[in-house]
Amino acid sequence: MKRMERIFSVPLKGGAVTDVYSAFSLAELHESLRAMGSSMLFVADDNTERFLPDWAERVILPHGERWKNWESVDRILSAALSSGLARDSVFVGVGGGVILDMAAFAASIYMRGARAVLVPTTLLAMVDATLGGKTGIDYGGGKNLVGTFFPAESVLILPDVLETLPEREYRCGLGEVVKHAFLSSSRRLYDFLADNRERVLGRDSSVMEEMIRLSLEVKIDYITRDPEERKGIRSALNLGHTFSHALEAAEDFSISHGEGVAWGTAAAFRVGRDKGITASDYADEAIRLIEDYGFDTSFRLPGNLFPSFMDAVSKDKKKKGGSVKFVLMEGQGKPVLIPLDEDAVRKAVLS
Amino acid sequence: MKRMERIFSVPLKGGAVTDVYSAFSLAELHESLRAMGSSMLFVADDNTERFLPDWAERVILPHGERWKNWESVDRILSAALSSGLARDSVFVGVGGGVILDMAAFAASIYMRGARAVLVPTTLLAMVDATLGGKTGIDYGGGKNLVGTFFPAESVLILPDVLETLPEREYRCGLGEVVKHAFLSSSRRLYDFLADNRERVLGRDSSVMEEMIRLSLEVKIDYITRDPEERKGIRSALNLGHTFSHALEAAEDFSISHGEGVAWGTAAAFRVGRDKGITASDYADEAIRLIEDYGFDTSFRLPGNLFPSFMDAVSKDKKKKGGSVKFVLMEGQGKPVLIPLDEDAVRKAVLS
Repeated sequence: MKRMERIFSVPLKGGAVTDVYSAFSLAELHESLRAMGSSMLFVADDNTERFLPDWAERVILPHGERWKNWESVDRILSAALSSGLARDSVFVGVGGGVILDMAAFAASIYMRGARAVLVPTTLLAMVDATLGGKTGIDYGGGKNLVGTFFPAESVLILPDVLETLPEREYRCGLGEVVKHAFLSSSRRLYDFLADNRERVLGRDSSVMEEMIRLSLEVKIDYITRDPEERKGIRSALNLGHTFSHALEAAEDFSISHGEGVAWGTAAAFRVGRDKGITASDYADEAIRLIEDYGFDTSFRLPGNLFPSFMDAVSKDKKKKGGSVKFVLMEGQGKPVLIPLDEDAVRKAVLS
Repeated sequence: MKRMERIFSVPLKGGAVTDVYSAFSLAELHESLRAMGSSMLFVADDNTERFLPDWAERVILPHGERWKNWESVDRILSAALSSGLARDSVFVGVGGGVILDMAAFAASIYMRGARAVLVPTTLLAMVDATLGGKTGIDYGGGKNLVGTFFPAESVLILPDVLETLPEREYRCGLGEVVKHAFLSSSRRLYDFLADNRERVLGRDSSVMEEMIRLSLEVKIDYITRDPEERKGIRSALNLGHTFSHALEAAEDFSISHGEGVAWGTAAAFRVGRDKGITASDYADEAIRLIEDYGFDTSFRLPGNLFPSFMDAVSKDKKKKGGSVKFVLMEGQGKPVLIPLDEDAVRKAVLS
C-alpha cells in the first residue's frame, strides 16, 4: 500500500512548522489522524461531514461564507468545552476555506491556543487557505476582519476528494492557481498550466497532484520570506485580492472567491499596463491565460455599485496609514505594492 | 519636570518586547500616548474613564468580571471598525485586569493583530495582568478559557492612580505581590514585605513604586524563561491559582482574584506541608506573612460547594492529558508542579 507522504515542511514565525502531507486514500488519512492519539474535535459542514471518520466527535456547521461568523466559532468553542478538550487537544478542520479558517481560529483562541490540523476538501483551500496561518471570520461586513495568525501543525491533502467537487468550485480554485503562476519567479507553474489546459480542466488525477504541488511551492516561497505579512513581501499573495474582496462585498458574496481573484488579477494587469508598470505583451498574455481557464475578465462593475465597492476597499485590512495599496505586476514573479487613487480604481473596474 | 522612565524591557516570544514605563503624572502619560501619533481607540470601564485624555476615542464598558465576555469584545471590535482603525492602530486599555485582558484580546484578533498598549489602574493589574501577553475572556463558566498570547507593546504604570483605588482592591493586589515574594529565588521582595508592612498597607508612594518593581521583577524572571507557558516554568506563576480559580467559580465570582490567590497560596502551603514537600517552618512562616497582610487563610469551602469546586478544577486550562497539576513550593523560589488527587484537594479546601 502507498503511504501518506510529507511533501512540504514549511517554517513559520517563532519556530513553528506546518507539515504538508499528501494522502492516497480517505482510510489512510483517518488512520493517521487516529494515530495522533490526542483528544480531537472535528469541524465540518453539511457538505464535508461525509469525509469524517465514524469515530469523530464533531461540530457540523451550515456551509457557506455567510456562516463565517462568531456564532459558528462559538459553537465550536462550546463543543470543545463540552468534550473536555485541553490545550494539547486537536481541532481538525475538514472542508473548504470557510471551515478551515474557523476551525483554526477556534483552536487559536481556545485556552489561548490548542492545536490545529487541517484537511482541505476544495482545490481553493488546498492551494490557498491552509498555509501561512491565517485564521478568521468575517466581521461588520468585511472579510476576515477578525482572526489570528496561527499555523496549523499539519495539513493533510487528499487530491482524490476533488473528484466530487462541484465544477464551479473546482474552477474557482483554479483562480488562485493561475494567480500563483504569475507570482512564481520560475515559469514552471505558468508553463504547466499553458501546456496542460485540457487535462487540468478534466481533473486528471496525476496532473492535479502536480498542479497542487507547484502552486503550493509558490505560496510557500512567499510566506516563508514574510510569515506575518509585516514586510510587504507576503502581501504579493494578495494579487487580485483587494479588487476581489471589494467586489465580493459590493456584490454581497454572490461571486466566488476564486472567480473574484481571477477577475481582480486581470484588473491588476489592466491597471499595470495602463500605468506603464506591466509590459503590454506580458499583461495581454497573462489575461489570455486567465481567460483560457474559463474566467470572465470582461466583467465590469455596474456604476451604481461603485460607492459600496470603494467602501469595501477602504475597509480592507491591507490599509495602512490611510492608503490602500494594490499588488501590480512588473513582470513574471515581480509583484509591486502601489497605492491607487480612486480614479485609477474606477477606470479598472468600471470601464 | 521628571520624565517617564522605562523600568523594564521584557523579551517575549518571537522577538517581541514589552517595554514597561513608570510615569509621574497623568498629564505626562497622556502626552506620551499622543506622541505615538497613531490612530487609537481607548478601552475603559465606568470606573476608569476618568483617567482618559479628553481627546480619546473610547469604548466604555460596564465594570466587573461578569462583563468579561464576547459581548464586550464585540463592542470594542465594532467601535474599532467604525473608527476606521487599521492594523497599525493602537488599542489602549485603561483599567484593571478585566479591561486590559479584553482590550489586548480585541487588539490581537482585530485584522489578525493590531497594537496594544496597556495602562493598569489597579495594583493587581500592575503586578500581574499586564505582562506576558495573556489576553482573554471568560467562557462557558471558566475563567480566561478563550484568549490569545499577545504581548502589549508597552505598559504604562502610574503608581499615583493607586491613591484612589478602593481599599479592598488594593489589598487584593497585595495577594499577588505576596505570592511573588515566595516565588522569587532571592528573598528581596519577601524581606521588603516583612519589613514594610505598615507603609505598604498605608500606600506610602515611595514604597509602592519599589514594591511594584520588585514584584514585576519576579514575574519577568519566570515569563522570560517560558514566554508561552509550554515548558512548565511559567506555570509556577499559577501558585494558588488553581485553588483560586475554582473557588471563584464555585462562589460565582463573589471572591476577588487577589483574595482567592492569597487563600489558594496558603492552601498550597498546607498541602505541601502535609505531603512533606514544603518544610513545616517555611510553610508556617509563609502562611503567617499572608495573614499579616490581612488575608483570611482560615476560610474553608462549605462541603456542598465541593462538587462545583472540583468541576471548575477539571475545567481549568492547566489540565493536560487528564490530570490537573497544582503548584506547590519546595522552599523559597522553588515551585514544583504536582498532580493532586481529589482527596488531597478535599483535605486542603474543606478541613
